[in-house]
Amino acid sequence: MISQKMQEQVKSSSVIRAMFEEGKRLAGIYGAENVYDFSLGNPSVEPPEEVRKAIIEIANDKNSLGVHGYMNNSGYEDVRTAIANSINEKYSTAFTHNNIIMTVGAAGGLNVILKTLLNPQDEVITFAPFFGEYRSYVKNFEGELVVISPNTKDFQPNLEEFKGKITPKTKAVIVNSPNNPTGVVYSEDTIIKLSEILRDKQKEFGTDIYLVSDEPYRELAYNNVEVPYLTKYYANTIVGYSFSKSLSLPGERIGYLVISEQAADYENIISAANIANRILGFVNAPSLFQRVIAKCLDAKVNLEAYNQNRELLYNELVSYGYDCTKPEGAFYLFVKTPIENDAEFCKLANEKNILIVPGTAFGCPGYVRIAYCVAYKTIEKALPGFKALIEELKA
Amino acid sequence: MISQKMQEQVKSSSVIRAMFEEGKRLAGIYGAENVYDFSLGNPSVEPPEEVRKAIIEIANDKNSLGVHGYMNNSGYEDVRTAIANSINEKYSTAFTHNNIIMTVGAAGGLNVILKTLLNPQDEVITFAPFFGEYRSYVKNFEGELVVISPNTKDFQPNLEEFKGKITPKTKAVIVNSPNNPTGVVYSEDTIIKLSEILRDKQKEFGTDIYLVSDEPYRELAYNNVEVPYLTKYYANTIVGYSFSKSLSLPGERIGYLVISEQAADYENIISAANIANRILGFVNAPSLFQRVIAKCLDAKVNLEAYNQNRELLYNELVSYGYDCTKPEGAFYLFVKTPIENDAEFCKLANEKNILIVPGTAFGCPGYVRIAYCVAYKTIEKALPGFKALIEELKA
Repeated sequence: MISQKMQEQVKSSSVIRAMFEEGKRLAGIYGAENVYDFSLGNPSVEPPEEVRKAIIEIANDKNSLGVHGYMNNSGYEDVRTAIANSINEKYSTAFTHNNIIMTVGAAGGLNVILKTLLNPQDEVITFAPFFGEYRSYVKNFEGELVVISPNTKDFQPNLEEFKGKITPKTKAVIVNSPNNPTGVVYSEDTIIKLSEILRDKQKEFGTDIYLVSDEPYRELAYNNVEVPYLTKYYANTIVGYSFSKSLSLPGERIGYLVISEQAADYENIISAANIANRILGFVNAPSLFQRVIAKCLDAKVNLEAYNQNRELLYNELVSYGYDCTKPEGAFYLFVKTPIENDAEFCKLANEKNILIVPGTAFGCPGYVRIAYCVAYKTIEKALPGFKALIEELKA
Repeated sequence: MISQKMQEQVKSSSVIRAMFEEGKRLAGIYGAENVYDFSLGNPSVEPPEEVRKAIIEIANDKNSLGVHGYMNNSGYEDVRTAIANSINEKYSTAFTHNNIIMTVGAAGGLNVILKTLLNPQDEVITFAPFFGEYRSYVKNFEGELVVISPNTKDFQPNLEEFKGKITPKTKAVIVNSPNNPTGVVYSEDTIIKLSEILRDKQKEFGTDIYLVSDEPYRELAYNNVEVPYLTKYYANTIVGYSFSKSLSLPGERIGYLVISEQAADYENIISAANIANRILGFVNAPSLFQRVIAKCLDAKVNLEAYNQNRELLYNELVSYGYDCTKPEGAFYLFVKTPIENDAEFCKLANEKNILIVPGTAFGCPGYVRIAYCVAYKTIEKALPGFKALIEELKA
């Protein structure tokens, strides 16, 4: 018998599995090219050519033990130095390798930092809509996820409600900008206010509250919109970064944590995160790809391809009468469903061979997430279905 | 403030850190080439040339999204099929891709299966001496590690004590053969008796007890000694494998779980392990290296190099008067300390610029682990120190 916790997980994941099965069923009937799968955040843009070059160059290194062997659990020091320098250059910060821990993607990094920080029953706040995995990550360490309800006006965090929900048990706040699922970038004004609230509450309760910034989409920001670097606004900030989207390498599981020296209990956090990386079973971030990304810190995926998808999909859906905030980053569109029941809307979309995810999965019912990291022509071919859908529902 | 659990971890890990610092201090004084570091299980033999070829071939694949993208959390189906076929060929089993879950090394695999199985307070049994990380892995899921005391005669598991320690709360038993730290291979006779005991106790208590076989050293067995494949002896067996040592790729974090269809609750275990892989933050095993190892399943590291180290070190130490079971596998020698206090002996060894690990770290005081995955000449240069040590202690 599997554990009780996992029995619940298996039960609740059956919804997603059913959707996956439905996609396969549709592909079987209509052909995969006639099923429009907008359900997954799997990059559609190739990794930059620098990645291929770096892999081959490193693989040809004569010292292959130095490429594939164990290193410090925090990762290669030279790689961490290169990352620190790159951040410093972009955001005028002053990090060194001592502030960087290489992780198995951002998901690995978040688990490492939550293991480091959480005692059972500690509270972690996040803002709906949010990446549903946070719920599991916090549960892994017996914490309680506290969800702030969505501000559907512009999908900036609801700071009034936030203020009221911080308690002496609040240990961390997770933010995600550019946001999955809305594509919204939290503005500098938002960050300044959020930081002030946190500082006030820390003083009021005599606690430390860590701001954990989950940033896999940092590099996917359109029209040069600014994505504030949070360590500059709030001392107790920890950044979780991933190269999954910035270099289209999600399968390689490579990312890092930035732990600021300004953060309370900094030295213990570094020691503990290093140990957590090890004992959670990650041990270290994959070694070849540590070296690969160090050579590709200035490389970029073809953001214009995502931008074209964004413009096409957003403009067309709005012209059909859909209600939606234009995303400034990531590769998701978060659309209000013309009927209240988002799961029902997804079922109707399935009938048009369109696969999308109900907002309920992100703590925001009445919306759907459309992942537009797909081929341009997939969007073109799906548009008549989206149009027919809203017309039928409004008829 | 970091969590209470991690405060304890930081405190207890300071011993190892102190040792690491001592190694650095000695290297600073005497030069790294005059410090003989036998403390780490980091392979000293290069990965086989097939690995380099496979990396370059795959990196040159035109479809790089198919190399670096997300796949099913269990891993690529074709890779899992190749692994199943390879196991079937070697051990006359009948696995398919449905029995294989790709993991972030064996450490990742063990955490996945323990998350899948353990309820809080469930007991997991292991046999001293054992890999100390098991303690942390079991604690990650609120389980209790029950340690069977060592049988220092030949370091086969102490089955009499084992029988008496199985309770209705026993959920799993972890075995590790070839063993870290002894290098001993559990004999077929041991496995047959252990399986019988487990079957009897399952019947007595009406429970399922899973045998988890941690096998990073399976391929490192000398003189063709047989390492039994445990699924053939006991139905509720789960194998955790890693390519860290068999292909000298420990930094790449690539391994797999084998979950037999004969195991009780098989389908739920597969579903839950797949989800655990995701929510623990691994998401999937690194994608490029999944494809690499699939091309290298018949490749072998130069085992003869380790064997030469083993012969030299074992024969010399025994000739000096050390007491030690000759290892049949892995790359460790487990030696009785001439004085009772193993930590004290390690300190004396440090004075000869020799770094080794006290047996206490493996639940077996009065012994030390010498990792002989080092250059042959490192052993040659360290031998006079080992000789002097025992002579001084016996004088």
